[in-house]
Amino acid sequence: MKLQARLLDIQAGGRRIAILDDETASLIGVHSSDRVKITHKNEHLIAIVNIASNFPRNYVGVYQEISTKLGMKNGETIEVQPAERPEALNYVQAKIRGETLRENEVKTIVEEVVERHLSDIEIASFVTALYIHGLSMDEIEALSKAMVETGSTLTLDKTPILDKHSIGGVPGDKTTLLIVPIIAAAGFIIPKTSSRAVTSPAGTADRVETFCPVNLTIEEIKEVVRKTNGCMVWGGALELAPADDIFIQIEYPLAIDPLLLPSIMSKKKAINATHVVIDIPTGRGAKVETIGSANALAHDFIELGKRLGISVQCAVTFGEQPIGYAIGPALEAREALSTIMGNGPADLKEKATTIAGKLFQMIGIENGKQKAESLLKSGKAERKLRQIIEAQGGNPSIKPEDIKLGSKKAKITTDKDGRVLWINNRSIVQVAREAGAPKEKAAGVILKIKLGEHIEKGEVLFEIYAERNTKLNTALELAKKLQPIGLSKKPEERMPTDHIPTRTKQREAFTLER
Amino acid sequence: MKLQARLLDIQAGGRRIAILDDETASLIGVHSSDRVKITHKNEHLIAIVNIASNFPRNYVGVYQEISTKLGMKNGETIEVQPAERPEALNYVQAKIRGETLRENEVKTIVEEVVERHLSDIEIASFVTALYIHGLSMDEIEALSKAMVETGSTLTLDKTPILDKHSIGGVPGDKTTLLIVPIIAAAGFIIPKTSSRAVTSPAGTADRVETFCPVNLTIEEIKEVVRKTNGCMVWGGALELAPADDIFIQIEYPLAIDPLLLPSIMSKKKAINATHVVIDIPTGRGAKVETIGSANALAHDFIELGKRLGISVQCAVTFGEQPIGYAIGPALEAREALSTIMGNGPADLKEKATTIAGKLFQMIGIENGKQKAESLLKSGKAERKLRQIIEAQGGNPSIKPEDIKLGSKKAKITTDKDGRVLWINNRSIVQVAREAGAPKEKAAGVILKIKLGEHIEKGEVLFEIYAERNTKLNTALELAKKLQPIGLSKKPEERMPTDHIPTRTKQREAFTLER
Repeated sequence: MKLQARLLDIQAGGRRIAILDDETASLIGVHSSDRVKITHKNEHLIAIVNIASNFPRNYVGVYQEISTKLGMKNGETIEVQPAERPEALNYVQAKIRGETLRENEVKTIVEEVVERHLSDIEIASFVTALYIHGLSMDEIEALSKAMVETGSTLTLDKTPILDKHSIGGVPGDKTTLLIVPIIAAAGFIIPKTSSRAVTSPAGTADRVETFCPVNLTIEEIKEVVRKTNGCMVWGGALELAPADDIFIQIEYPLAIDPLLLPSIMSKKKAINATHVVIDIPTGRGAKVETIGSANALAHDFIELGKRLGISVQCAVTFGEQPIGYAIGPALEAREALSTIMGNGPADLKEKATTIAGKLFQMIGIENGKQKAESLLKSGKAERKLRQIIEAQGGNPSIKPEDIKLGSKKAKITTDKDGRVLWINNRSIVQVAREAGAPKEKAAGVILKIKLGEHIEKGEVLFEIYAERNTKLNTALELAKKLQPIGLSKKPEERMPTDHIPTRTKQREAFTLER
Repeated sequence: MKLQARLLDIQAGGRRIAILDDETASLIGVHSSDRVKITHKNEHLIAIVNIASNFPRNYVGVYQEISTKLGMKNGETIEVQPAERPEALNYVQAKIRGETLRENEVKTIVEEVVERHLSDIEIASFVTALYIHGLSMDEIEALSKAMVETGSTLTLDKTPILDKHSIGGVPGDKTTLLIVPIIAAAGFIIPKTSSRAVTSPAGTADRVETFCPVNLTIEEIKEVVRKTNGCMVWGGALELAPADDIFIQIEYPLAIDPLLLPSIMSKKKAINATHVVIDIPTGRGAKVETIGSANALAHDFIELGKRLGISVQCAVTFGEQPIGYAIGPALEAREALSTIMGNGPADLKEKATTIAGKLFQMIGIENGKQKAESLLKSGKAERKLRQIIEAQGGNPSIKPEDIKLGSKKAKITTDKDGRVLWINNRSIVQVAREAGAPKEKAAGVILKIKLGEHIEKGEVLFEIYAERNTKLNTALELAKKLQPIGLSKKPEERMPTDHIPTRTKQREAFTLER
């Protein structure tokens, strides 16, 4: 049916949506959520129909994703026909029914997700079915491969290519800022792509961005790696596994993460990594709560690695408190820089050299951890970090105190003596985000004590940094309400007896950063 | 945060969606799919955030659902703040995890669905979880009650109030057009609300609309029922259980129907029905395929009825072929009118009088079926139908031939002799829809034979009616491809041996009409 195009001058978040009024939709023979084929000058695409009862008849409204793709002008006549139901929907329904999908079926789903043939409703149902029924390792492998095949890749002419990844869930984890320079300083290739924070106070890309630009193209990344062996860039715009980015958008409001394995590993495969260490922070308040589940997940990562031709090892790390003391992009960048210059907290150094050491061992270097420690101690890692900063367009002479912190500050003190029994990661994250992190880079939290340490009444538990007084005040209020740090003199006080929680507020604990 | 309002002059299908650019969203502290509270002159509502990267900074774009509700004008300054996460999401997640929901939790979900606090993604995930994990009878009861409480009701000052409902799945089922007049002719109240076709070639409302208007208000319905004891109206705009309408919108693209019981029974409760017969068409190609599942479903309907204070009986009816010969709104209306005038097909009469008879028995009338038959035979049902038509604003003297049929016609003949072994309901539905039904009311299919009948080579199997030649041709092509009617001389030909189906194309069989 010929319809007149009405161009909406806004985007639909990547979705391809066509608006029709009831009558026009009925004449074409489609309902809301059905698909139409839109043809304009021999080019066509599939769009999902939204019905707007007050839309003019014989018009089709299109968001920018469609008009840009087809080069449409306002008022042009275009052909709109009912489109066949995507094949992928059969397989989505098979998964909903609990069937196991075959490789070609998984591939079809991923392709049609990337082509935007599936609606949010259909993708939401798919990820829910994946979460409830679980995925076989064959399905995980097929998903990972399909995600790589439908995206861009980074091809470097060297090997081995090293990488590390944390499944997330622990605040203040700035180890990547140490590991990349350590590995690169030893002469090995580590082209690290990272995400920005979604649910946390800082992603690696947010931290690095306080030193230097992170939004590089594939070609710029190649150049930085050629010069320095490493990089620390934002992966979000590289289209390394665009299906995954779409899945994450849908998973985020649902706070479920059934695609953790293919999501992480497809991005490793897309940069052609050969050796990868996966960090699995474990413990109360982390994403994985027990060593048993951590080991099971580790086995899956290793198995998936084998199937993708990537050598994988896992580090099950202590996840019951933040890494180091700083939480928030600028505060963490300062702490990382200080540490690489020789003055940082022991747990951060320990974690970074352990993971870097594992990578060294994987490629045949004996005493990997010692090698990592010596690269850190000798200043070679620091020099490498400064090279990388320079190559990415930052100031190589940057000092920790050059990184601007929030000018608004508040201290949270304790009203009793005691030893730190627990630090609630989720509450720390909430306070740091309330203070403005990650968007306001200078905002965040500085812990003044860690687990097991003793503190006297009136001393400071932590400080809050913010860029604005309003944010500082709401963060302060939240901190008083949440009481993120628990003290006790006697072990029996660990047993809470007066508080039966309501339904798990799972969302607060939820981490989607890759 | 104060933002300038930009009013989009289109609807978002009932959804409350606010558009922000990345920067503004970050400053407010929300992501795509998060919620904001929009305040305008002391009134406020919750909207779901869509991010459009090219949207102007410090603006908020709102679809008409929001601007109308809040009385906003373009360019006005309004307050936009991050909103608390809806409580309902905790319970949606509990259901995803496989937990059983409590009554108040179900109620919260339904309320927030109606308030549009939940996004399509979240509702899709919820109905998928319901489909996969199943619902307890307590959950079904709670859903039904919450759906009634969040909608309008029809209160008549008489009792008993009778009703019938088919779970659907069989084409050509125009029995309601006979049952309502039969019951009303006996002096009993039957305020029937029906849906339009979603996935079928005709809903009851589509059929009745060829006689008289069906889009009545609650007050108009009361008047029609006062005059005639019955009505046959479209329930879609009455807001009888608005949550259900939203759920159906989401279930439609997924082709799953976990809310069948609460969906149907909430609408019966909303009209204060006291005695209801549920028709469960059963057999190959129907929604329920075996007597065993039909009986199980019947037990659930009866149990749910008890909990809602409605007396329910179920009729498990033969669903392996269309009812009567006509499929499509006008064709079916003609057949129903002929039948009530004394000339219709036996299976239609049989089904209508059986269900009407069951209703009579339920309210204590002996030999209910005989009573129904005599009301049909005596012409009393016909006179009642004409009264109802008049009361709803139609022509009471309408004759079958006054109902316009499609002027384009084609015949499908058989190229061999044989007895009809099967009639594929789904294929018949597809052909009728391809011909233009339900939107083009004069389009559809007329069967010339039914199961078990013998046909000679060259005779007509069925005819296709259409309003336009293009539709007729595509329907004809589809009919040739699908071959909806199977003939055989020998029983062993029933065994197909040369055709392994690919993944079930479940959608074609899917019926969402209530």
